[in-house]
Amino acid sequence: MIIVMQLNATDAQINGVVSEIRKAGLKEHISRGSELVIIGAIGDENKLEPAHLEILPGVERATRVTKQYKIVARDSHPAGSIVKVRGIPIGGNQIQIIAGPCSVETQEQMNLSADAVAAAGCRMMRGGAFKPRTSPYAFQGLGVEGLEYFQQAAKRHNLPIVTELMDVRMLDTFMEYDVDVIQIGARNMQNFDLLKEVGRVNKPVILKRGLSATIAEWLMAAEYIAAGGNHNIIFCERGIRTFETTYRNVLDVTAIPVLKRETHLPVIVDPSHSGGKAWMVPALSQAAIAAGADGLLVEMHPNPCDAWCDADQALTPEELKKLTVTLGAIAGAIGRSI
Amino acid sequence: MIIVMQLNATDAQINGVVSEIRKAGLKEHISRGSELVIIGAIGDENKLEPAHLEILPGVERATRVTKQYKIVARDSHPAGSIVKVRGIPIGGNQIQIIAGPCSVETQEQMNLSADAVAAAGCRMMRGGAFKPRTSPYAFQGLGVEGLEYFQQAAKRHNLPIVTELMDVRMLDTFMEYDVDVIQIGARNMQNFDLLKEVGRVNKPVILKRGLSATIAEWLMAAEYIAAGGNHNIIFCERGIRTFETTYRNVLDVTAIPVLKRETHLPVIVDPSHSGGKAWMVPALSQAAIAAGADGLLVEMHPNPCDAWCDADQALTPEELKKLTVTLGAIAGAIGRSI
Amino acid sequence: MIIVMQLNATDAQINGVVSEIRKAGLKEHISRGSELVIIGAIGDENKLEPAHLEILPGVERATRVTKQYKIVARDSHPAGSIVKVRGIPIGGNQIQIIAGPCSVETQEQMNLSADAVAAAGCRMMRGGAFKPRTSPYAFQGLGVEGLEYFQQAAKRHNLPIVTELMDVRMLDTFMEYDVDVIQIGARNMQNFDLLKEVGRVNKPVILKRGLSATIAEWLMAAEYIAAGGNHNIIFCERGIRTFETTYRNVLDVTAIPVLKRETHLPVIVDPSHSGGKAWMVPALSQAAIAAGADGLLVEMHPNPCDAWCDADQALTPEELKKLTVTLGAIAGAIGRSI
Amino acid sequence: MIIVMQLNATDAQINGVVSEIRKAGLKEHISRGSELVIIGAIGDENKLEPAHLEILPGVERATRVTKQYKIVARDSHPAGSIVKVRGIPIGGNQIQIIAGPCSVETQEQMNLSADAVAAAGCRMMRGGAFKPRTSPYAFQGLGVEGLEYFQQAAKRHNLPIVTELMDVRMLDTFMEYDVDVIQIGARNMQNFDLLKEVGRVNKPVILKRGLSATIAEWLMAAEYIAAGGNHNIIFCERGIRTFETTYRNVLDVTAIPVLKRETHLPVIVDPSHSGGKAWMVPALSQAAIAAGADGLLVEMHPNPCDAWCDADQALTPEELKKLTVTLGAIAGAIGRSI
Repeated sequence: MIIVMQLNATDAQINGVVSEIRKAGLKEHISRGSELVIIGAIGDENKLEPAHLEILPGVERATRVTKQYKIVARDSHPAGSIVKVRGIPIGGNQIQIIAGPCSVETQEQMNLSADAVAAAGCRMMRGGAFKPRTSPYAFQGLGVEGLEYFQQAAKRHNLPIVTELMDVRMLDTFMEYDVDVIQIGARNMQNFDLLKEVGRVNKPVILKRGLSATIAEWLMAAEYIAAGGNHNIIFCERGIRTFETTYRNVLDVTAIPVLKRETHLPVIVDPSHSGGKAWMVPALSQAAIAAGADGLLVEMHPNPCDAWCDADQALTPEELKKLTVTLGAIAGAIGRSI
Repeated sequence: MIIVMQLNATDAQINGVVSEIRKAGLKEHISRGSELVIIGAIGDENKLEPAHLEILPGVERATRVTKQYKIVARDSHPAGSIVKVRGIPIGGNQIQIIAGPCSVETQEQMNLSADAVAAAGCRMMRGGAFKPRTSPYAFQGLGVEGLEYFQQAAKRHNLPIVTELMDVRMLDTFMEYDVDVIQIGARNMQNFDLLKEVGRVNKPVILKRGLSATIAEWLMAAEYIAAGGNHNIIFCERGIRTFETTYRNVLDVTAIPVLKRETHLPVIVDPSHSGGKAWMVPALSQAAIAAGADGLLVEMHPNPCDAWCDADQALTPEELKKLTVTLGAIAGAIGRSI
Repeated sequence: MIIVMQLNATDAQINGVVSEIRKAGLKEHISRGSELVIIGAIGDENKLEPAHLEILPGVERATRVTKQYKIVARDSHPAGSIVKVRGIPIGGNQIQIIAGPCSVETQEQMNLSADAVAAAGCRMMRGGAFKPRTSPYAFQGLGVEGLEYFQQAAKRHNLPIVTELMDVRMLDTFMEYDVDVIQIGARNMQNFDLLKEVGRVNKPVILKRGLSATIAEWLMAAEYIAAGGNHNIIFCERGIRTFETTYRNVLDVTAIPVLKRETHLPVIVDPSHSGGKAWMVPALSQAAIAAGADGLLVEMHPNPCDAWCDADQALTPEELKKLTVTLGAIAGAIGRSI
Repeated sequence: MIIVMQLNATDAQINGVVSEIRKAGLKEHISRGSELVIIGAIGDENKLEPAHLEILPGVERATRVTKQYKIVARDSHPAGSIVKVRGIPIGGNQIQIIAGPCSVETQEQMNLSADAVAAAGCRMMRGGAFKPRTSPYAFQGLGVEGLEYFQQAAKRHNLPIVTELMDVRMLDTFMEYDVDVIQIGARNMQNFDLLKEVGRVNKPVILKRGLSATIAEWLMAAEYIAAGGNHNIIFCERGIRTFETTYRNVLDVTAIPVLKRETHLPVIVDPSHSGGKAWMVPALSQAAIAAGADGLLVEMHPNPCDAWCDADQALTPEELKKLTVTLGAIAGAIGRSI
């Protein structure tokens, strides 16, 4: 930890900091500059809280120098990790397009969706049985019945399924229905009890970024899961909240190369929720793959006009098929495949 | 709902919108302007989704005109509501200062805290037994043991207690320990399952604003609670996330008069988490009361230097006492009391 | 304009709005819904200000329906415009990479830069003679001397030059030195007097997006230039300011497809200032081209370690050359060329 | 400057940093921790750029420890400065309310405005002759004619006038018309050439905060003015841009105590532009004074319904008078006067 003292800090104040550092079992290292005194605290930084030093008289600020995430840090696994979902690799050279409807509606809709997902050459399917909705009066998802429809439809093409878990009390049900990948939504990125529970099961987890979560908070949220023993975590960038109101969210493509540097885990992108309109999805998907994303989580509906939610952001089966061709060409341009 | 058509929208496209409006049981009202055609959909707006209209050909955008929150809207209770906590009114002329430590640490620390809260003339006490921490390796709160200490300490001064509920599975325990006010933290503002559950109990709820939640989303989160039957909701502004990095969050004082206009429910402010530093707390507290807040949720610790978390933002007992005097004078200046 | 009345608005209040609409020479169109009355004002919307209607009693809000930008709107030129710089097209099928150092330093540095720009196959060169610096004590650019060096160096390869104009009083000098493209920087996007002046000259203008400018404000800033008669405007996205602090700015790729839809003018991207680090530039450049950008404005320095400003974000000549090859492959994947 | 090395940085990399530090004439101070090596560069920090160190191999990041603003820093004048405008103090115990219309319209409107300003007990008057408007087609202000009307009206009550300077070429005219306080608007906060010019004249300057300017950038913008010799600078917080769309901007009250700590110069608040609605102005004004602001810049119009711009945010003369009474009481509560 580095402690910058205020201009004119007295020796007594410097000694106060030193004694706090020693009390925590660390050693001090004092640099006296022309204007300022800076104190380094050497040793196990987790034994000290910046807040405890910042209230001491004469202290300007205290800053950690080590990162608080350990298991998910790239340093712990420099070569990069591949998360396997029933044998399908996420995080390797091959890029995975996970497609499907926003919400599970009927058995027929799911069957048609699964057909379209498979026809477009995608290897995994998404769909929501439990829906986080801003309004309590909006459709909240079919619940367990939705999981049933989803599994039925996906089985016909042997597609692993990805679906969102909102309530910790439903985790057992997810295990019973053998959900292949558990999705943690943006609004629950810091629902710490939920993170702890999915950290205890042996299932890959897609961790969406919170609407205004920093990269550091997101990595720490993943560390919550990893600390429980489950290291099969996939980050999913889905657009952040900014001042701009012309589109729903701003897809943060910069997060892709930054995360790939900070963590060994795979990074995918949801181009559907970021823009919020189907006509933006191709441009955003192409940008994501070109920037180095390991996959996409994209909304497709057999008939968007009839979709029960987010109708305006779903691709048609034809649009999905066309998009995957372009994405294949872009993947090739950067030495990857789809 | 208002549907603005694109420039040059054809009659067929207009008819397409009209038929969709009628299908939902509403009536259309067409305004043909010099440049644009605008269509009003008259009737129960909840039967129509903007998304469904925005994918129709020729549509520029569709906008709701009615608000989606009903129970919490001021229109439903123009005179304003007072939430009572063991007889203490929140939302009336009297302003309530709820003080106490960030987290419950020991029985002694809680006893000293309760003494200081009472000595400053505050009528309610806060303290966290379950702590949402960014890092899984940080102190997570004492849990149930903390509730025990808290109740013991508060009873000595007959102070109602306010504490945060993070996990839906702990709700029964909160009821057993007779927590007086359940706090929903910023990170859980859109944890919809948690909101639904506290909507079913008969306990006042403090609903903190999410770090980047809009006023509309916050009102809808309260509506989730209200829709379950529990109308004893208190909004708590606690600073929002912006581009500014000099301080932890930006206290959004504008939210105070805006909320007071939009909802009949009380609005309080947490000046401690917004700024993140004890020396900012007096200025922010004064601003909040002057802007019309119905109360404060403020951190105080018998000995901030030893606090187990957020040491740098807790007031000392003396600072709290001094602050309440100034706040009393400001309250008087705007015709209220403390 | 659409005026939504408050719940329970009286007939007198509705009449007040109607009379205001008629006074401005427009006609009213009243829709009485089940809950709300909505009034459409039909005619020339520019004759009415929403603010004037919103202060009338009983009015909830007034919203424009037509866009305020006219010349730059795609509707005015649906096929899209190509801006030519000494015969080089920006906005057509061919993508332009404009490269060069952050600031002009010496004649030798500029000569080496021009050699590298040409060697990488780029057709235009960038470089700053006047630098907007956060600190008054930082290097402010070489000024006119810098323009001299820049022109000398660029001439050897017949490269058109792009450079930033900060002070309206320097415009004549820019014309004398025959600057090919005038760049308006992010901090001056709403320096309206500067916009008006460059609107009167016959030179292409690159208009960078303000750090927190909305798409609508940016389009209106371009309209200021266009209203003066100069329609040769190129939009340049350069990253926006958000809550994220891990990188300097967030490159807003969503702005690319949205602008391409809203305006007929070309859109380029500055990948260097958005991320702020050279190692992020390839990923961001690739994302920009894949999302449909018409070009890039990228920093390259013959020896980044010695650069006088922004040393950490400049590519080396070799990195630039390598990047253009990848960008060529991505351009091919979406049916374009470099 | 503090340089944090990457995990596993080699001795050669550490030596590279050391040699760069010495080349700039500073001395190194190396702390070898359990995990990381940290290097302090001791001496004149302005001789080193973090960017130059961050591109060296093995460097994680380089951070300045000294502040880049000197003249405006509180350290340079710990007691605080009072800026006098024709004898009226800004920054002392007395709080100044500067009121007047958004824009100068007619001689009569200005006369009525001046009467109302004086009647409310305010000692200075504001009004815009040059208006920064988002649209080139909107009213741009009366220009020089407006200065004429403004001076005429203000003289009748001996009120010093405050008005905005947008174009550096108008500075001489401002001096001729003897404008008492030059206002630099939010959009020009980083128009560095304009800042340099007002730094050379002997007139107080109100420097509004940019829409998304950080505190550090704002202080540096003031330093630009101060570096020219003009130290009569008044900071004006006017709301920042965030994700919230219910109101125009978020008044950042936290900036008040923070600025008062960082600089010795006065800090005032514009409650009119932050909220954007007249009904919010009293709450925001009260919050600003309670938080420690040295004054307000508030919009008042003799007849808001007829105002040529921002009609919805101007107070009436009666509302202003009533507000000053409340503000006087709040000032008294915190030991100040109006």
